Amino acid sequence: MILPDIIFRIATHADVPSIVRLLADDELGSLREKYENPIPTSYYSAFELIDKDPNHELIVAELDGEVIGTLHLMFLPSLSFQGGLRAQVESVRVDTQYQNQGIGSEMMKWAIQRAKDRNAHIVQLTTHKSRADAHRFYERLGFKGTHLGMKLSLT
Amino acid sequence: MILPDIIFRIATHADVPSIVRLLADDELGSLREKYENPIPTSYYSAFELIDKDPNHELIVAELDGEVIGTLHLMFLPSLSFQGGLRAQVESVRVDTQYQNQGIGSEMMKWAIQRAKDRNAHIVQLTTHKSRADAHRFYERLGFKGTHLGMKLSLT
Repeated sequence: MILPDIIFRIATHADVPSIVRLLADDELGSLREKYENPIPTSYYSAFELIDKDPNHELIVAELDGEVIGTLHLMFLPSLSFQGGLRAQVESVRVDTQYQNQGIGSEMMKWAIQRAKDRNAHIVQLTTHKSRADAHRFYERLGFKGTHLGMKLSLT
Repeated sequence: MILPDIIFRIATHADVPSIVRLLADDELGSLREKYENPIPTSYYSAFELIDKDPNHELIVAELDGEVIGTLHLMFLPSLSFQGGLRAQVESVRVDTQYQNQGIGSEMMKWAIQRAKDRNAHIVQLTTHKSRADAHRFYERLGFKGTHLGMKLSLT
């Protein structure tokens, strides 16, 4: 099922426009991102913060030199769970052309393995209630929808 | 309603046992924390990671020299929302003796103000689906339960 020559790796500065393209190409994402040429510099500023912080890993899936998937993996130290490290996943996207081919699943499994390698005790994420396909996708990976995700917009 | 002389401040090393006491004194927390004397060193190891990272703020509410509340505020750089900074709140507790007196609300408002001061565009949190009182508490503060919070245990 999975395409044979996909590479998962940490994103570089040069990948930022491709990642923004993926973030914007989405029903909810299109309302809040700006994919234009050049992309707003705020994306690069955020990339620098992510790139220099060892607790953040911005991941891309690459096929034939093209970025076709992304996720943002972060590690959150916490006192809870006896001082256990949490892993959190945000901003998961697969290029619409390449969806339903198992790429998202492989990318998530790759991220979960990285979380295990860092001895995280949990991987957590939130997904909009409207994304029913995403809920099933994460359930197939073993996630359980035990929590309510609440957001307070400050803008 | 609010007790007049409560101080909100960043936690110190000396506060860790009191914070663990609060984390453990809870229906879900009692299953996963170890509040004993001395507390496991893993709590202190996690505290050091939190304390040295400017993107993490472990907060305590202090009344007459006693820690009666805590929350963990974190700032998460992200490419999404045009490179916007997210604030996230975890591990919110108020001493059972002091609940329903507005202390949790004041503590959250204090944290929300800090998130505004750092130009975060959102404050996010998850709360177990079983905590109906917590849902109402956060809704009163303006949070909307738009997301499903999903967890994958790695232990």
